[in-house]
Amino acid sequence: MRTIERLTSLGLLAWFCCLSAEPVQGGKVLVMPVDGSHWLSMKILVKELSLRGHEVVVLVPESSLLIQGSDSYRTEVFTVSYSQQELDANFNELRKGIFVPPKSTDFLLDIQRLIDFTNLQVRGCESLLHNEALMSRLRAEGFDVLLTDPFLPCGSVLAHLFSIPAVYFLRGLPCGLDLKANQCPTPLSYIPKFYSGNTPQMNFPQRVKNVFFSFVESYLCKLLYANFDYLASKYLEDGMTYKELISHGAVWLLRYDFTFEWPRPLMPNMVLIGGINCAKKGPLPAVVWRYTGVPPTDVPENVRLMKWLPQNDLLAHPKAQIFFTHGGTHGVYEGICNAVPMVMFPLFGDQGDNVHRMVARGVAEKLSMLEVTSETVVATIRKLINDKSYKQKMVQLSQIHLDRPLQPLDLAVFWTEFVMKHKGAAHLRVAAHDLNWIQYHSLDVLGFLSLVLITVLVLTLKCCWFCTRSCFRKRTEKRKSQ
Amino acid sequence: MRTIERLTSLGLLAWFCCLSAEPVQGGKVLVMPVDGSHWLSMKILVKELSLRGHEVVVLVPESSLLIQGSDSYRTEVFTVSYSQQELDANFNELRKGIFVPPKSTDFLLDIQRLIDFTNLQVRGCESLLHNEALMSRLRAEGFDVLLTDPFLPCGSVLAHLFSIPAVYFLRGLPCGLDLKANQCPTPLSYIPKFYSGNTPQMNFPQRVKNVFFSFVESYLCKLLYANFDYLASKYLEDGMTYKELISHGAVWLLRYDFTFEWPRPLMPNMVLIGGINCAKKGPLPAVVWRYTGVPPTDVPENVRLMKWLPQNDLLAHPKAQIFFTHGGTHGVYEGICNAVPMVMFPLFGDQGDNVHRMVARGVAEKLSMLEVTSETVVATIRKLINDKSYKQKMVQLSQIHLDRPLQPLDLAVFWTEFVMKHKGAAHLRVAAHDLNWIQYHSLDVLGFLSLVLITVLVLTLKCCWFCTRSCFRKRTEKRKSQ
Repeated sequence: MRTIERLTSLGLLAWFCCLSAEPVQGGKVLVMPVDGSHWLSMKILVKELSLRGHEVVVLVPESSLLIQGSDSYRTEVFTVSYSQQELDANFNELRKGIFVPPKSTDFLLDIQRLIDFTNLQVRGCESLLHNEALMSRLRAEGFDVLLTDPFLPCGSVLAHLFSIPAVYFLRGLPCGLDLKANQCPTPLSYIPKFYSGNTPQMNFPQRVKNVFFSFVESYLCKLLYANFDYLASKYLEDGMTYKELISHGAVWLLRYDFTFEWPRPLMPNMVLIGGINCAKKGPLPAVVWRYTGVPPTDVPENVRLMKWLPQNDLLAHPKAQIFFTHGGTHGVYEGICNAVPMVMFPLFGDQGDNVHRMVARGVAEKLSMLEVTSETVVATIRKLINDKSYKQKMVQLSQIHLDRPLQPLDLAVFWTEFVMKHKGAAHLRVAAHDLNWIQYHSLDVLGFLSLVLITVLVLTLKCCWFCTRSCFRKRTEKRKSQ
Repeated sequence: MRTIERLTSLGLLAWFCCLSAEPVQGGKVLVMPVDGSHWLSMKILVKELSLRGHEVVVLVPESSLLIQGSDSYRTEVFTVSYSQQELDANFNELRKGIFVPPKSTDFLLDIQRLIDFTNLQVRGCESLLHNEALMSRLRAEGFDVLLTDPFLPCGSVLAHLFSIPAVYFLRGLPCGLDLKANQCPTPLSYIPKFYSGNTPQMNFPQRVKNVFFSFVESYLCKLLYANFDYLASKYLEDGMTYKELISHGAVWLLRYDFTFEWPRPLMPNMVLIGGINCAKKGPLPAVVWRYTGVPPTDVPENVRLMKWLPQNDLLAHPKAQIFFTHGGTHGVYEGICNAVPMVMFPLFGDQGDNVHRMVARGVAEKLSMLEVTSETVVATIRKLINDKSYKQKMVQLSQIHLDRPLQPLDLAVFWTEFVMKHKGAAHLRVAAHDLNWIQYHSLDVLGFLSLVLITVLVLTLKCCWFCTRSCFRKRTEKRKSQ
């Protein structure tokens, strides 16, 4: 009983007050968005964070495409070293190849256009970094978290400079840099490379193609991210790469799930929020048609021409039977959410690969923008309507997509708030970040163990040989002496 | 306008009824539990499924330790070829080594005891499989899902025989067979092997140790699962291994999260439900003490001896300051849930490794059951009370653990119902299951590409050599003729 007495005398069972969890009501969020369609879905999260009582500041370059002010968040406009015209020209250049028949050299031209585009964005970021007044005002605000799309580097650079955790909101990065930076295993044997045209079930030639594509990708990665590497190295740490910079992201909110993405390994800090853009549905007029040209005179009475229409509301209408889309991920998810089979015209960027996924799942047909005729359109429509499998598969996909324990928006808000509350998500960070390529694959260890094994083998053989020889020699000497 | 006319004449915008999602209210769940502590947390899910309107049937061997009937689920008792005494003796044998100082040969003895234990369970399973009346009755029931802990093989065998999807509920399997079977990447360079004593941050010798342990593990795996392989091969498909059998699991409900498990890759069908056993808290008397022996006479007045106490309720009491535990995962999570630092006495099974994790995180101290004295206990208690870091770290861990978008029980119910509704979770199954080891690592592709590279190199060199030689020969001939 001595132990019990000692315990009670120590006051073991005395009152001990728990430290209480720090609340984040009224946290401060700095947002560095990427312009264009990227902003359209991020805006949903930004507005929701604001609605839930957080103070949100959105950084907007003075020349921008879609980012605008709002009542629900504050904007900080910063001057950039390029004009609106220059931006528009640059963006148009990026889309230029779409309506021109492709040549073999177009591939490199596309890469060059993308590099020119990101180069301009890097210049914009440098304008911000040199804006000392704004930078010190932002630093002084004491933000809890930085929300950004790492498709462009400025957000990550700011998070590093201000020492605040970053939450990434994206569909993915060219070259799969998001997966590489986050140490997410991506076996080439069953995860199709971007634009390889492969599905997860690959035969030997397809797997060879996949590996070959990964070599090409590694090379392109260096070209594509040279600008970003320069930015990280110049403004943060000498020699720091962009991959290293974004590897510090606390949580990755990824705009896909496994109705779109092929099944693959995930990391603990990867949160799937595919379909976040399928917002609540509104009522619609009877029949609508998007048409931006001069209205023709012979439009049938049951067709209504409109310049802009709420795509998701339209798809949600029970009479929507086929969705014509270029295959951007927002549209793809609106198609999946509303279970509408698709006729797809991929234009540029990730769209070709997005379309491939949907066609491979049997819920879409692909048409080329350059070769399309009213005959092929009609034939495709007939096919999608008469062959019920398209609709059946799409309904199945949609049911799986919509059957989730939590809405993507709630999940995105939860994890952003989690990072604010706990000042990051260190418990989800794998130790692989501290290893180089050789260490990660245990090549040094395997080399060492092989060396040990070989040494032991050689020594054993030498011993045996020595013993046999001396034994033989003794016998010979014995015989000789006899 | 021809296209528009054609579209409308085709009835493109005509009404098309969506197929509705199939409801699973009143689904049928077959449960094949594992006895002992494994059952304690699975029972929580089983009861909840029943509460939510599903018909649940639990298979119980007539000789069992903790599994009992209940109002909330139906039980089907099956006869087994061993007696209750034989089971108890077998289980006691398994725990035998705990209070005896270890010898170097104990390691193999422990393995042998575990094999003897599982062997008995396999015999029990065979009794069930040969019980034709019960088997055909179960088959006729048309269950939607089978819920089991693959620590023992009978559940998976039944799921395969009845062609129903399986949901696995477990903390993990010896040798990491759960991860291997589910194709989850487990790099040896930063994921510590069981019982290696490593943490994710390993230096070179520790990484060598980790790789060495993995070799030993591979060998032990074969010994450990020989019984299960026999069962799968005999009753299902000739040559089928247990690993192959459980690779068909639709969803893996895993009783851990990253406050306990080291951060590591996950697969899409792995759902973390760590802390599912931290149920709602009940009121407690002022001070309690578990004591199963003859009550001593000199117990202080503020200590109440009890034979059995509700551990989680006790830990939830604000006066609970230190938790003495053997380090089973249920207890560990009750400690984490309630933010109580721990003094841990690992006994057998996974407990040594569990304790190592908690000690490495700075929220616990380990004591040996064989060497413990009241002095070491008192010194450890003093340490945990005086050094505030234990409590601080535990509070932090607890806050992270409790800060989740959905309760583990709700998540477990959701995914079980998902599998029932969608007849599995095929969209989460990776294509890696169809590849062998060489294909998975792309070794055949790399071999082929190397061969191509070498061939090209050799041919180029041969060409060069041939050209040089013929060029040289011509010159020599020319000189000769001159």
